[in-house]
Amino acid sequence: MTIWQLSSMLLVVISSVSPHPHHLFEYDELSQYVDSHQEEYVQTLRDWVAVESDSSDVLRRPDCHRMMDMTAEKLQAMGGKVELVDIGVQELPDGKTVALPKVVTAQFGSDPSKKTVCVYGHVDVQPAKLEDGWATEPYNLTDINGNLYGRGASDNKAPVLAWIHTVEVYQALSIDLPVNVKFLIEGMEETGSNGLDAMIVAQKDTFFSDVDYIIISDCGWLSRRPALTYGTRGNCYFFAEVEGPKQDLHSGVYGGTVIEPMTDLIGILDTLISPSGKILIPGIREAVASLSDEEWKMYQDIEFDIESFKSKIGVSQLMYSNKVDLLAHRWRYPTVTIHGIEGAFSGPGSKTVIPAKVIAKFSIRQVPNMDPAVVKKQVTDYLCSVFAKRKSPNKLKVTMIIGAKPWLADTKHPLYEAGKAAVKRVFNVEPDLIREGGTIPIAKTFEDVTGKSIIMMPIGGFDDGLHSQNEKMSRYNYIEGTKLFAAYFYELSLLK
Amino acid sequence: MTIWQLSSMLLVVISSVSPHPHHLFEYDELSQYVDSHQEEYVQTLRDWVAVESDSSDVLRRPDCHRMMDMTAEKLQAMGGKVELVDIGVQELPDGKTVALPKVVTAQFGSDPSKKTVCVYGHVDVQPAKLEDGWATEPYNLTDINGNLYGRGASDNKAPVLAWIHTVEVYQALSIDLPVNVKFLIEGMEETGSNGLDAMIVAQKDTFFSDVDYIIISDCGWLSRRPALTYGTRGNCYFFAEVEGPKQDLHSGVYGGTVIEPMTDLIGILDTLISPSGKILIPGIREAVASLSDEEWKMYQDIEFDIESFKSKIGVSQLMYSNKVDLLAHRWRYPTVTIHGIEGAFSGPGSKTVIPAKVIAKFSIRQVPNMDPAVVKKQVTDYLCSVFAKRKSPNKLKVTMIIGAKPWLADTKHPLYEAGKAAVKRVFNVEPDLIREGGTIPIAKTFEDVTGKSIIMMPIGGFDDGLHSQNEKMSRYNYIEGTKLFAAYFYELSLLK
Repeated sequence: MTIWQLSSMLLVVISSVSPHPHHLFEYDELSQYVDSHQEEYVQTLRDWVAVESDSSDVLRRPDCHRMMDMTAEKLQAMGGKVELVDIGVQELPDGKTVALPKVVTAQFGSDPSKKTVCVYGHVDVQPAKLEDGWATEPYNLTDINGNLYGRGASDNKAPVLAWIHTVEVYQALSIDLPVNVKFLIEGMEETGSNGLDAMIVAQKDTFFSDVDYIIISDCGWLSRRPALTYGTRGNCYFFAEVEGPKQDLHSGVYGGTVIEPMTDLIGILDTLISPSGKILIPGIREAVASLSDEEWKMYQDIEFDIESFKSKIGVSQLMYSNKVDLLAHRWRYPTVTIHGIEGAFSGPGSKTVIPAKVIAKFSIRQVPNMDPAVVKKQVTDYLCSVFAKRKSPNKLKVTMIIGAKPWLADTKHPLYEAGKAAVKRVFNVEPDLIREGGTIPIAKTFEDVTGKSIIMMPIGGFDDGLHSQNEKMSRYNYIEGTKLFAAYFYELSLLK
Repeated sequence: MTIWQLSSMLLVVISSVSPHPHHLFEYDELSQYVDSHQEEYVQTLRDWVAVESDSSDVLRRPDCHRMMDMTAEKLQAMGGKVELVDIGVQELPDGKTVALPKVVTAQFGSDPSKKTVCVYGHVDVQPAKLEDGWATEPYNLTDINGNLYGRGASDNKAPVLAWIHTVEVYQALSIDLPVNVKFLIEGMEETGSNGLDAMIVAQKDTFFSDVDYIIISDCGWLSRRPALTYGTRGNCYFFAEVEGPKQDLHSGVYGGTVIEPMTDLIGILDTLISPSGKILIPGIREAVASLSDEEWKMYQDIEFDIESFKSKIGVSQLMYSNKVDLLAHRWRYPTVTIHGIEGAFSGPGSKTVIPAKVIAKFSIRQVPNMDPAVVKKQVTDYLCSVFAKRKSPNKLKVTMIIGAKPWLADTKHPLYEAGKAAVKRVFNVEPDLIREGGTIPIAKTFEDVTGKSIIMMPIGGFDDGLHSQNEKMSRYNYIEGTKLFAAYFYELSLLK
């Protein structure tokens, strides 16, 4: 028996007399244990990153299934009460169906005298290929100067593992978990959490019945200062398909005789947004909640260095030159991004082809008080009317394949107060209160269906490169983040 | 000794007394020999198509080299005087260099009493992948109902082989070749015949010194009626690159803060051409030679069924609804095609990325009296001025990577009269006199450098699908085309 185990036993004994007194929280032991086991945590992350769980590519679906199995096995081995929940099938554009990755739920503890938290995370990833411009193999976690490079490292495998390791640390030190802990881990987040909404609705009165709080760590800090996140933008993701000839044509032989689908597509895409970033789709801007004076003041106070932001992404000029406009357009105004075109020539070199069918992929990040169903109609009507003016014989089909809602929390809620205390304990600073430009589609669903309070507690770095080449998670954020989670369990136990 | 060989000997004996009398041309023997050896010809084509000699992809360069070696070996085995001419290296965008495929030259016969023809062709191909929508493996020649499907089958491997087989047939039947035959076969045609111009200039007074006529068969018929081609469009192929952030960004995290390169690129591409096909780049339309009454009349008489053209390519409406406008815009007016965008998301599914660097590929088919150097300046100046108006901090780079000139011949030239006679003999019809919307970049160079007369004698079908999915060569065109070439050698020998 080591001195550590002894002290843990002591804590348990004392706890049973006076539950969770503040001064008795064994933070130092937990912290030291995390430090001394960091190589194991990095190795587990390496094992998880090695699985190419790209949920957007149905050919990778077996990897997604394997990733869910690995997650379930890990939680099972820790003694959790684990389920792999079947959430049905995904319908593909060609009418075929493919099984969705099962959702993993797990439970550690069911003490009715404790609060119950549910940690949400996902273990699917965005696509990544070495030839996209990665410096390292994207599915081989590579440590360079304390940064762990790999697809999904920060989004969202390391945060999920940090929560799992937190439970392990309490277990290893035989410290009673201050709260009952549930996990809900999915494998379709990157493509819109297909099937999860229905599963949450179905388990509203079972799995979620005793949950007090939902915690999400699928985001990142704004600077080197730790942050708590109180809002996210939604995402309406569109396919605009223009179809013309029945097959690709030689541009010499046919150029000048056919109305080219690519010209039509470029023409309608060019009407979405102005050079200065103004969204041109009627009705979109009008729906946005106006910026309050209080919010303006709050943005003024946030630690955010525009120059280092510019230098990090490597641009000489941003869309807005002052902090408030920039943060506001990042967090609480909608934006349109054209991601690319499927079906056109996209390789290196030259090809003299008239593509027969081209599909633009673009998305609109949306905010309160926009509504995805309304956005879908606004975009579809607008593009159809713009297209009609071209008098093209080609066929336009507009589809909204993702319609994820924005989410906004109250920063004065006790959940956030506990979060501030945990950050203060681990990092000895006050967290920034920030919003997230990206989308955590499930936040709004959790809120609407379960009625529970939600907090987003990020541990990812501000420069982790989510969704882009060379995504990474720093060892510092991974390890200190695990300590933050350990401290947060304790702070949550103090809530009335 | 067979009766065939006997008759051939007889021909040679008589020829030496009265060279090439019309009534003694052994067309029937040649024709029967071709028919009875067609399986061999198809097998050779299969062997050639199996080589993925995609000249646009430097990773395929070894296949291009192999293709040139196979061509040289074939001609060598037939007793030709063969050379593999080193034409230097290709400079890649990153500054590296890679060897160009050597040019194969060959010579059969050097009788000063005969005309000398030079057959030009190419054995490189456009890119092709099964997943582009091919019904069969593109590099495995597949015979379906008499159509031979495979990349490069029609463009240009079968026509090159048909000329080679023509020489073989004369040899096999021991019939003296009516003309001296030279071959010039290259491996960079699909990307602009890099290095060939200089080689032609260098060999002007050697290889080309005794050449009377140059024959090109790198095109196709307009309908089921055989055709002779008297003009081609040129091609100016552009890369327009817009570069912004130093790497791809998450569209949620960064959308709204950066000026996205894709939005800029779409914006400038949309200014190239109007929905009705009008080129918007100043100066382009003004340079085009006007349509003469004689030409208008000629187009009126050409066999061309708009309805079957529409149904072949599968569109309900063309850019022009009358035959003359349609043919004129196919052959003798310029057009802009946007082929695609490199660097953006192009896969199936969804990806929420802001691409950091995107490169549009577009080309302008140009015609007399446009000049590639002028077009380059017009396009670059125009796009830069359009881009400047956007006031974007991103960087635009416009490059013209191919600048191939148009070509136009005189249909009254004896070369064409001989062609008409050969078509009449084999197919028993008058050929259509047509132009080609595509580009045979080298035609203009041959004309300018060597001063020789050129004819284009296509054997490809009107529906061969050059540069697109399911390219094919029909057995009929391949085999009857070989007979046409055999007949043409004879007709050429009658020219004064």
